Amino acid sequence: MQPQPQAPSESPADLVITGCTALVHDEEERVGFVEDAVIVVRGGCIDRVGPAGEVRVPLAATQHIDARGQVAVPGLINCHSHAAMVALRGVAEDLPAREWFDDVVWPIESNLTPKDVELGTRLACAEMIRGGVTCFADHYFAMDQVAAVTEESGLRAHLGEAFFSSQGPAGRAASLEFALRYRGAAGGRITTALTPHAPYTVDDADLAATAGLAREHGLPVHLHAAESREQTDNSLARHGVTPVEVLERTGLLDLPAGVLIAHGTGIVERDLPVLERAGGPVAVATAPRGYLKFAWSTTPVRALRGIGVPVGLATDGAASNNSLDMWQATALTSLVQKAAEGDPRWLTSRQALHHATLQSARTVGLGDRVGSLAAGRRADIVLVDLGGPHTQPVHDLAATLVHSVRPGDVSTTIVDGRVLMRDRELLTIDVPETVRELNGRLPALVDRSHGRRIQDYDRPPQ
Amino acid sequence: MQPQPQAPSESPADLVITGCTALVHDEEERVGFVEDAVIVVRGGCIDRVGPAGEVRVPLAATQHIDARGQVAVPGLINCHSHAAMVALRGVAEDLPAREWFDDVVWPIESNLTPKDVELGTRLACAEMIRGGVTCFADHYFAMDQVAAVTEESGLRAHLGEAFFSSQGPAGRAASLEFALRYRGAAGGRITTALTPHAPYTVDDADLAATAGLAREHGLPVHLHAAESREQTDNSLARHGVTPVEVLERTGLLDLPAGVLIAHGTGIVERDLPVLERAGGPVAVATAPRGYLKFAWSTTPVRALRGIGVPVGLATDGAASNNSLDMWQATALTSLVQKAAEGDPRWLTSRQALHHATLQSARTVGLGDRVGSLAAGRRADIVLVDLGGPHTQPVHDLAATLVHSVRPGDVSTTIVDGRVLMRDRELLTIDVPETVRELNGRLPALVDRSHGRRIQDYDRPPQ
Repeated sequence: MQPQPQAPSESPADLVITGCTALVHDEEERVGFVEDAVIVVRGGCIDRVGPAGEVRVPLAATQHIDARGQVAVPGLINCHSHAAMVALRGVAEDLPAREWFDDVVWPIESNLTPKDVELGTRLACAEMIRGGVTCFADHYFAMDQVAAVTEESGLRAHLGEAFFSSQGPAGRAASLEFALRYRGAAGGRITTALTPHAPYTVDDADLAATAGLAREHGLPVHLHAAESREQTDNSLARHGVTPVEVLERTGLLDLPAGVLIAHGTGIVERDLPVLERAGGPVAVATAPRGYLKFAWSTTPVRALRGIGVPVGLATDGAASNNSLDMWQATALTSLVQKAAEGDPRWLTSRQALHHATLQSARTVGLGDRVGSLAAGRRADIVLVDLGGPHTQPVHDLAATLVHSVRPGDVSTTIVDGRVLMRDRELLTIDVPETVRELNGRLPALVDRSHGRRIQDYDRPPQ
Repeated sequence: MQPQPQAPSESPADLVITGCTALVHDEEERVGFVEDAVIVVRGGCIDRVGPAGEVRVPLAATQHIDARGQVAVPGLINCHSHAAMVALRGVAEDLPAREWFDDVVWPIESNLTPKDVELGTRLACAEMIRGGVTCFADHYFAMDQVAAVTEESGLRAHLGEAFFSSQGPAGRAASLEFALRYRGAAGGRITTALTPHAPYTVDDADLAATAGLAREHGLPVHLHAAESREQTDNSLARHGVTPVEVLERTGLLDLPAGVLIAHGTGIVERDLPVLERAGGPVAVATAPRGYLKFAWSTTPVRALRGIGVPVGLATDGAASNNSLDMWQATALTSLVQKAAEGDPRWLTSRQALHHATLQSARTVGLGDRVGSLAAGRRADIVLVDLGGPHTQPVHDLAATLVHSVRPGDVSTTIVDGRVLMRDRELLTIDVPETVRELNGRLPALVDRSHGRRIQDYDRPPQ
């Protein structure tokens, strides 16, 4: 198409959304709502957003969505997933963490092939797009497949190739190679991190070397740490330091590109000053559903907020969480935090939405690019239909979004201005074909007769 | 239609469902699944259910549902709701229980009209039918309206007109009048109870008189008791006895038709022998979502199971729970119980399904009529579609049902053999019209400028 001889402000927009209520943030980052809003998208970015009376609607647009009766929210960000583990959904139920890892998941993962990861990730992306997730931070194996599926699905992702010290230096090298190769891939939708598994499976020397590489290459690090209180106790008994103190002494808290700590339910009082004096950005991802299932305590969100650490929301893998439902993760964060703090006034719906939007964007290192419907940000937008009986009436839209909306209420999912689902129709993924292919591979995948496992779980010192 | 001159076993069935996987219970009430099952319905009852090869399919049926790829489960039972409170969904957020009652809900309920109750209940019934709920135990005001909407919606319900002692003897009399008038209404779909509000709002003399009426008329009683640990502490400080001991001394634990205790999160150790020696059936309804929201502890399900008390599942009203989603109530019961007991092996998915089916049926006094897909039971059947990416693959169908299925996966809801929703289409309720009418009434409903309230919340003794 020939460019039109118009002023730039008059050129056709790529996408215009009208008639919706838009979730926005004010200058103090408070969540608010603009009624009868217009969102104009150009070049993958939000060009402008505001009330219909104040925002000039372009004369022409390649695509127009009439979103009356719907709410536009920033695309949800799953800050810690192992997307391909949807292939193991339901395979290890009602078990303590040690048995879950050692007896089921890690034996099964010794069978894992790149094809399994490809199919699992494709199914996971379908689930996420249908649930309004536009970005996921993934930490797993065979990540070339995850990058390829991210590219084809249209999602945004923050990816890293996981490694254990049991792999020797090759694990770290492969993680670096992946991070450098895919940084900025998929038209910039892919960002990368170095992803050691955890302080109990990656030794201090390896963590320190990882920190050095991260610093050298300007990469962030994403790892599990202090997953449970038991891990913290084991670390103290074994090394005299907490997992967070291990991160500090190996240099992982001083990275210019930051560190993303998954879970942190074992973050204790003495860790707070350590995190507060970190030399680089630190964020924590909380995935509360799995903690309930393992009978763990939960992430100390209030204490972390008290020292300015952003807490992003996550599902973890579907083998522990059973779903990649970020609406549920948001609601459960609010509910579990109230119970944990004994305070029904804490973690209100608006606070939960702040975690789900700006804090989650910061957690995955995209704080200036996504997480808000604002001019200049990438156009990651989700439309939520409030027509169902379970979302009516609406006395408090923030509460409706946090406590009543479900993934099935998402009508439309947009990443970088591209529509990945419209009116519940997935436009980039064939679910039945993916399920058919995956099901054929499951018997080989779940076979544990070989007696191998890829790693051993954290064990209390003898 | 003329009856056909056939043997009874050859007469046309009213409904035949084929090709589904059916959730069944064995003789020890263990949950199992029959693949490629056939369910034959006649006269509102399940005539037979079993594998296609073993169950004779009638030559003719008025209605046939091909349910390949779907799971048939007993209709879900919401054991404690205030259905009409969907009108107040989101109106009182992030508040402690006392403020929630005294400052918002009870002032608003002083405005409540029968029309509000009618519309709220109709919207609630739509939400429940869409979510696979076939029966609800409702405890509210203007219950004639609830009975009328139950009749028109096709749902099954266990209903009672709530009262406080502040109403004088008229409250109790109205509750009895309602219970006698509607017992067996809607073709037997309505059963009734006497429903004093709670031991902290209904005095001992009134509770004892209620127990006498229940005994005289063969009615059960459904009331709130020991809702929170604070209520138990207040009762001990004020009267020297726990709320459960109040139920005992007023005769409510010795009713031939039984007592249904809502919540019971304040049931303490000394209450267990009291409940164990009860002279009549006792059951407890747990609604865990609202307890998290109020930062309460949860129902001691394991202790109650230890003394043989059935625990049914519930949502409570949408003003505290924000939804009537019984799938979520089932999942949260499993998750919260694991966390509360510190035991990931406790309250497995199969145990959760036992609570959701047979225990819930017993809780609402319908233990021999619903709660299981078995010959002779009423045909309350829900079909769940597992085609969504979030429910695939299926390694453990019980886990899929408890931890992955959502209300939107329910394709078909059947009560007494009558299809109330088919392929997601509601057949008995007009949602847009109900929402429109309800929205017009909300400003008057939520007005609190009058300064009145219908009752005072439980206050600690001075």
